[in-house]
Amino acid sequence: MTASLRQAVVAEATGTFLLFATVIGSGIMAEQLSGGQVGLALACNAIATGAMLYVLVALFGPVSGAHFNPLVTLVMRLRGAIGTGQSLAHVAAQMAGGLAGVFAAHLMFDLDILQVSGRDRSGIGQWAGEAIATFGLILTVLAPRPGRAWEVPASVALYITAAYWFTSSTSFANPAITLARSLTDTFAGIAPASVPGFILAQLVGAGAAMLVASLVFAGPARGAASSQPG
Amino acid sequence: MTASLRQAVVAEATGTFLLFATVIGSGIMAEQLSGGQVGLALACNAIATGAMLYVLVALFGPVSGAHFNPLVTLVMRLRGAIGTGQSLAHVAAQMAGGLAGVFAAHLMFDLDILQVSGRDRSGIGQWAGEAIATFGLILTVLAPRPGRAWEVPASVALYITAAYWFTSSTSFANPAITLARSLTDTFAGIAPASVPGFILAQLVGAGAAMLVASLVFAGPARGAASSQPG
Amino acid sequence: MTASLRQAVVAEATGTFLLFATVIGSGIMAEQLSGGQVGLALACNAIATGAMLYVLVALFGPVSGAHFNPLVTLVMRLRGAIGTGQSLAHVAAQMAGGLAGVFAAHLMFDLDILQVSGRDRSGIGQWAGEAIATFGLILTVLAPRPGRAWEVPASVALYITAAYWFTSSTSFANPAITLARSLTDTFAGIAPASVPGFILAQLVGAGAAMLVASLVFAGPARGAASSQPG
Amino acid sequence: MTASLRQAVVAEATGTFLLFATVIGSGIMAEQLSGGQVGLALACNAIATGAMLYVLVALFGPVSGAHFNPLVTLVMRLRGAIGTGQSLAHVAAQMAGGLAGVFAAHLMFDLDILQVSGRDRSGIGQWAGEAIATFGLILTVLAPRPGRAWEVPASVALYITAAYWFTSSTSFANPAITLARSLTDTFAGIAPASVPGFILAQLVGAGAAMLVASLVFAGPARGAASSQPG
Repeated sequence: MTASLRQAVVAEATGTFLLFATVIGSGIMAEQLSGGQVGLALACNAIATGAMLYVLVALFGPVSGAHFNPLVTLVMRLRGAIGTGQSLAHVAAQMAGGLAGVFAAHLMFDLDILQVSGRDRSGIGQWAGEAIATFGLILTVLAPRPGRAWEVPASVALYITAAYWFTSSTSFANPAITLARSLTDTFAGIAPASVPGFILAQLVGAGAAMLVASLVFAGPARGAASSQPG
Repeated sequence: MTASLRQAVVAEATGTFLLFATVIGSGIMAEQLSGGQVGLALACNAIATGAMLYVLVALFGPVSGAHFNPLVTLVMRLRGAIGTGQSLAHVAAQMAGGLAGVFAAHLMFDLDILQVSGRDRSGIGQWAGEAIATFGLILTVLAPRPGRAWEVPASVALYITAAYWFTSSTSFANPAITLARSLTDTFAGIAPASVPGFILAQLVGAGAAMLVASLVFAGPARGAASSQPG
Repeated sequence: MTASLRQAVVAEATGTFLLFATVIGSGIMAEQLSGGQVGLALACNAIATGAMLYVLVALFGPVSGAHFNPLVTLVMRLRGAIGTGQSLAHVAAQMAGGLAGVFAAHLMFDLDILQVSGRDRSGIGQWAGEAIATFGLILTVLAPRPGRAWEVPASVALYITAAYWFTSSTSFANPAITLARSLTDTFAGIAPASVPGFILAQLVGAGAAMLVASLVFAGPARGAASSQPG
Repeated sequence: MTASLRQAVVAEATGTFLLFATVIGSGIMAEQLSGGQVGLALACNAIATGAMLYVLVALFGPVSGAHFNPLVTLVMRLRGAIGTGQSLAHVAAQMAGGLAGVFAAHLMFDLDILQVSGRDRSGIGQWAGEAIATFGLILTVLAPRPGRAWEVPASVALYITAAYWFTSSTSFANPAITLARSLTDTFAGIAPASVPGFILAQLVGAGAAMLVASLVFAGPARGAASSQPG
């Protein structure tokens, strides 16, 4: 393993650890404190997740690309941005880091470390939500931003903040977090039986995003346009 | 259709799709989860809308100008920034994308796809609110920002976040979304009979913004000023 | 009146109009929708005010310095950044624009245009709050930011967002808005009899900020330091 | 004392004063206004703290590094970024400024100036939370950001905003604020008996962050990587 690959693997594992601990942990805290006001709980869960995404994308973007998501890694592999070996290392790091993040959240809140969610999330509406959520996330990630890399942390963070609210699924948009969230019987959980439907919907959304990105971002026209509305 | 026009049309359609799905979808989610706490519901609706606007203006600004709004397109046409053909293509893309966004929101939340709002929004106060809301939005869009294009996504996003709260109409400020919101009988809806009054008020606000912009932004004095308070 | 002074006056009047309409209007909306949950109402009032401040400082900073506040204008005059004539023009524009903003808020929400607040805000605690609130605001405005002017809109906006919560007075920190808020009998109001105490406390806070700024920002040492923690 | 050391000391004292007044003061305000809705109170406390952190890191970063935290000062000393004398001066300034901030919060809200918290915060879960909270904060501070110093204020602010929610301890992550919060019997308080456990956990988290930082940020590979996901 080269030095830069090792750094990327540690970055993906550490970032996914903190991200998943945030998704699960803030969900637990929000549910405990909100006294049954579910809207408030989701708002706090969304703000914490978005805030942490900004931090982690800024922190690890230059090291590993800040994927934290096997679908993002897959898309980057398909575009030739990274090789097969590095892709597999990223996904392994994401799964390990993410699992540790779930366990850490349970540890912090004095809950059983090993849990299985009983929360059904399925049906046409939820799957449509998950496909649209992933479509928007992958489109956000695929945008070329020459000279505007500073937009990336805020864009990813704010996209997910919005997607927690506008999609019926509350936007998982990530197969690793879908699996990880099946291992927590708390606010953010998803029953294992609901996982395959979500991941399938995510693949559909990612494919649609690649298609639209090829229509909207390709070619030299973009560089000539102004970066300002109008 | 040239390549760059095709890209702009896809950008306007995709952006308006995601924006309108966010406005309607987050309104549905917020109302469902907030247990009758309307203030909380509007807060979540506003945060989701603002967050998505940042993402979309950053994503599509360099491709199409990120109008997502026929009034913005009209103002840009009047200033000569784009031609008549492109303006019409933008508006058509906005209407098609916006309609698809409304339908997608209904699909995601397992509601009837076709709806008509029964929510009356009219009266002097609401119309004044809509005129002021549009005045501020168009002024924000019209500001010259030499070397400061990075301000645009945050400014548009935060303007609408504020305007959801400070205007009595909750700030539509966009004829396309006014029409689209007449087709949803949910939190964000507006009765068809209230649409013309809102669009008229928006035109008044946009006209006032063009006038004030010509007074405040014109001339060489601006370039010489410091960008810092004081 | 020169062209650039005319532009500055329009900028100060328009910015103060939108700012004060936001402070009062979002207060009315928040109180109406929050069903007696005062914490939620203040949160929405703070988010709207902070969001609008970002927009307005970015929009008008290069034109007039984006003061919107006679105390900021006074401090800039004392430092020699602007002349006496321009200072007086700024303050007149702030008072006129601010008054129009209060009336616009009342118009939008179908309230009597002319009102007087009955809300007492006085006592050692409130005055200490107002002095500390103003101290922090003026310090934020006085910081030299060579090559970092982009920090200004976010810093001013986030300072006020925080100050709505951490000061017992909810942070007026501006003599013009103190006067303007005495003319609204709504969430954001302040009784006329409480105005002098608030303005006095603001002057004390501004003086302390000028003193600390001279200790902490003066000299060549600053330029040599790194802009990064550590 | 050299001029630049004096400036750094004033920066650390003033920044810590405003930060601690914000943490304690917004906690008091949030608890008073939220009517027993603890989730809302923590949300407002977190937003105020994060907003103030952005302001203060942007304001004082170029002067003193904007530590406001003896652990950050210690880590910077261990890395050789500052000398022993300056480190001690920073910590003294943080303690003095922080204490003044606590007293100012009590003064503003008409509470007894001198208080002792009765709120127990202890146990494996809380200590794990505090270690993880500090791990993430120190990692955020240690990231090299060549040409990207503008990420620092937002990253620190958003990290703490997230950490208020995802850690069971609500993230103190700072020995000075841990001590200071033992002197307030309000929302943000911690009983003196719980202080040593928290500080020990913070040291463990900081040590882990230094280790991970040496694995993930070291070497020339970082400079060559893209700053964009993928």
